[in-house]
Amino acid sequence: MNDQLIIGGQEFQSRFILGSGKFSLELVKAVVENGGAEMVTVALRRANLGGEENILDYIPKTITLLPNTSGARTAEEAVRIARLAREMECGNFVKVEVIRDSKYLLPDNYETIKATEILAKEGFIVLPYMYPDLNVARSLVDAGASAVMPLAAPIGSNKGLCTQDFIQILVDEIDLPIIVDAGIGRPSQACQAMEMGVDAIMCNTAIATANNVALMSKAFKQAIEAGRAAYLAGLGRVLNNQAEASSPLIGFLED
Amino acid sequence: MNDQLIIGGQEFQSRFILGSGKFSLELVKAVVENGGAEMVTVALRRANLGGEENILDYIPKTITLLPNTSGARTAEEAVRIARLAREMECGNFVKVEVIRDSKYLLPDNYETIKATEILAKEGFIVLPYMYPDLNVARSLVDAGASAVMPLAAPIGSNKGLCTQDFIQILVDEIDLPIIVDAGIGRPSQACQAMEMGVDAIMCNTAIATANNVALMSKAFKQAIEAGRAAYLAGLGRVLNNQAEASSPLIGFLED
Amino acid sequence: MNDQLIIGGQEFQSRFILGSGKFSLELVKAVVENGGAEMVTVALRRANLGGEENILDYIPKTITLLPNTSGARTAEEAVRIARLAREMECGNFVKVEVIRDSKYLLPDNYETIKATEILAKEGFIVLPYMYPDLNVARSLVDAGASAVMPLAAPIGSNKGLCTQDFIQILVDEIDLPIIVDAGIGRPSQACQAMEMGVDAIMCNTAIATANNVALMSKAFKQAIEAGRAAYLAGLGRVLNNQAEASSPLIGFLED
Amino acid sequence: MNDQLIIGGQEFQSRFILGSGKFSLELVKAVVENGGAEMVTVALRRANLGGEENILDYIPKTITLLPNTSGARTAEEAVRIARLAREMECGNFVKVEVIRDSKYLLPDNYETIKATEILAKEGFIVLPYMYPDLNVARSLVDAGASAVMPLAAPIGSNKGLCTQDFIQILVDEIDLPIIVDAGIGRPSQACQAMEMGVDAIMCNTAIATANNVALMSKAFKQAIEAGRAAYLAGLGRVLNNQAEASSPLIGFLED
Repeated sequence: MNDQLIIGGQEFQSRFILGSGKFSLELVKAVVENGGAEMVTVALRRANLGGEENILDYIPKTITLLPNTSGARTAEEAVRIARLAREMECGNFVKVEVIRDSKYLLPDNYETIKATEILAKEGFIVLPYMYPDLNVARSLVDAGASAVMPLAAPIGSNKGLCTQDFIQILVDEIDLPIIVDAGIGRPSQACQAMEMGVDAIMCNTAIATANNVALMSKAFKQAIEAGRAAYLAGLGRVLNNQAEASSPLIGFLED
Repeated sequence: MNDQLIIGGQEFQSRFILGSGKFSLELVKAVVENGGAEMVTVALRRANLGGEENILDYIPKTITLLPNTSGARTAEEAVRIARLAREMECGNFVKVEVIRDSKYLLPDNYETIKATEILAKEGFIVLPYMYPDLNVARSLVDAGASAVMPLAAPIGSNKGLCTQDFIQILVDEIDLPIIVDAGIGRPSQACQAMEMGVDAIMCNTAIATANNVALMSKAFKQAIEAGRAAYLAGLGRVLNNQAEASSPLIGFLED
Repeated sequence: MNDQLIIGGQEFQSRFILGSGKFSLELVKAVVENGGAEMVTVALRRANLGGEENILDYIPKTITLLPNTSGARTAEEAVRIARLAREMECGNFVKVEVIRDSKYLLPDNYETIKATEILAKEGFIVLPYMYPDLNVARSLVDAGASAVMPLAAPIGSNKGLCTQDFIQILVDEIDLPIIVDAGIGRPSQACQAMEMGVDAIMCNTAIATANNVALMSKAFKQAIEAGRAAYLAGLGRVLNNQAEASSPLIGFLED
Repeated sequence: MNDQLIIGGQEFQSRFILGSGKFSLELVKAVVENGGAEMVTVALRRANLGGEENILDYIPKTITLLPNTSGARTAEEAVRIARLAREMECGNFVKVEVIRDSKYLLPDNYETIKATEILAKEGFIVLPYMYPDLNVARSLVDAGASAVMPLAAPIGSNKGLCTQDFIQILVDEIDLPIIVDAGIGRPSQACQAMEMGVDAIMCNTAIATANNVALMSKAFKQAIEAGRAAYLAGLGRVLNNQAEASSPLIGFLED
């Protein structure tokens, strides 16, 4: 089956995007390999350590880098970080992340739209991190986004699909790849999102807080593939107030 | 990693048990192969068709058969069916299923305990289908069960883990393999059960009601493996009222 | 509206039954009054303190006592406690509670059926505390129970309606009053159970662990009444994948 | 207990706000009385029928009118409708509702902020209907809103608290009355929102789609009061993996 994810014209076999922020440099490579990621986020500062170790040394060259604009509180700051990342040869992809709220780390949707518009015009492939609001997603489409990245729950919370109903609306209404980013805490939750028709999952904390990071990476890889396969296979109906014998052949003995 | 499931002294690599009742004979083989099942249920009647086609012809010889006692309304009937199955060379494994209720098809726990006790004494490897009640599970242990098979939801409903809290209690308190059987409707639900520490999943309707049966079989296989890996890897903590930056390196630009 | 709850031939206006076990004697009266309870459980030992204070002194004479058999591990012990309670002039009502499991305090359904049968024959009005299993509920009907008291979650946990799907089955199939007992932790959960068609709620811990016990009693009273009214009024339909304007008069300005 | 809701300097005893859009004129009065509402929404068109019947004739004079801007697709249109309503002597309260999306009827947060700012400066007491986004709520505070009205689920869906986690954030972080508006389908859901600390509930469809409208109005009234009382009383703790005997007096018989 040829089921590729295409973002900004580039093809991906994997639907698992790794957020690398919580991993030591030593772990990044193991997580990428076990999780089968083909795209990995990079915070500017980690690619920017001068004479010291650079995260880019730990990421295989075949991986697409996704620099993020973490630290930006306004569209202007996000744009500045994105440009710097491109100058540092991190490529054309950028995850726009504009956050003013320091407790829940919720994205500022309107500044995100502004940054997306500016960067898309400059030729970036823009993946905005967003609070899942249909009207905003439509504005992001208009602004030239190449995908939208709605949150499932606050960053790092591992709370799961708190925004489920509204992500479903994005899946149904928005004609761009939908990448669930932030809050997914377990492989089963990643699987569930994929069953809903989401196109990819970004994950960081759920893996970083597991006891066995490499094994959890593999678990996410499989769960995301399982959810995608289930979506393509077409889920069965649910019966609410009854059962149904597992076989037309089941009957009572004396029947 | 050597992570085997052992039931009745026999080792299994796969934690997916296929309920075959809803599949045409043509489909059984595809489902077994794509799902990687090593154990498959067989209803007596399907193995009992005289000159006609026999389901056993469609199940690879390496597969462990799990004859069930479907159709039994009492312990006595279940015992009788189990003995017939053994005579027909279906082996020593038996899934005890005693159901009097024809709407919700809920198992009769007390008749199940009785049948389990009789059959275990006769040398069967007994896997009783049960309503997830801790006191009953303890009685099943005493009766000689080799595993317990609590339901997630009514048979064929695809409703998912309606009994979640009580299956967790069985996982924590019962020293036998726990196999969730009935009601699992999606790979993500199978994954979630496995993350809880359940030992295996039996599935039938969720696959049979999918549009693409072979692909859904594969999805369940992966989801069950993912859930097992996540359980072994150790799930991360959940934050309820806050977020946590994905990186200690995240800070605001001017900080 | 004349909407009475009838148990054992006796009429009740209130559908809130108070479990008194966690209250100091001083608080019982306030809780009864604020909650509007007409039936209150009494543990034998609290009615049995010889020269000391007796809980019965704190319960208004108009209240129906519901002695429970807490402490019983077998049917035999439950029967013995029930008889003692009757000798102490606690009346004919008895809540049968047989618990062997000391961690989750889950009822032993089988011993509960046995005790119910014996006590019903002796003229008691028997309300058995049970794990919500349809087959067992049917056996309790046959044994002469006057109501069934399925648990929502483990006693004292405040976890809410963990057994929701199976309590709904009892509501739909069992022709006796269904009283949800144990696990209800918030007024909204009591309200939800009543909306499902449950006949009454027993509550103890949720009130006893509130900061303001009298006010929480009142909250439960109102929530139970609200849920009953909603059940009688008939809940509206749910739309899953769309919205519906609140008014046929809503239209866009220029329409 | 003196527990008033204060919006725009005006005191309310009732925390139930009635959306009147789905009711025939005949029913409005019954719903207001049974629900104890002190504030009722009015769509401009219903107050604007010239020689014909006018909804204002059916609303008691003691009720505060809350004209809404339904039909507005932009801030400008909302402002225009609000001014018309004031000219028609509907008072200074206005519910700003700006909706461009015709399938899910989700509010346009950005246009809502703009309309709020303009109307607040003109002396209106502005209650904006919003998608529950913390950053937007903060902007609405800055814009001069007198309360915020986050949705629970799409209008008219009766789906309940789909946005629960994010409404809780508003309750915790925003220093204005939080009124849950849209999506509440059952009294238990209204009760649950109030237990979370929400200040008031607006309801329309759940009552309009009930079989018995007057009785459902009463149910909502009680459930909202119950939830408020529970919030003030302080909910008890939840135990996740165990039970707790309802009485220190419970022990096994022979202990």
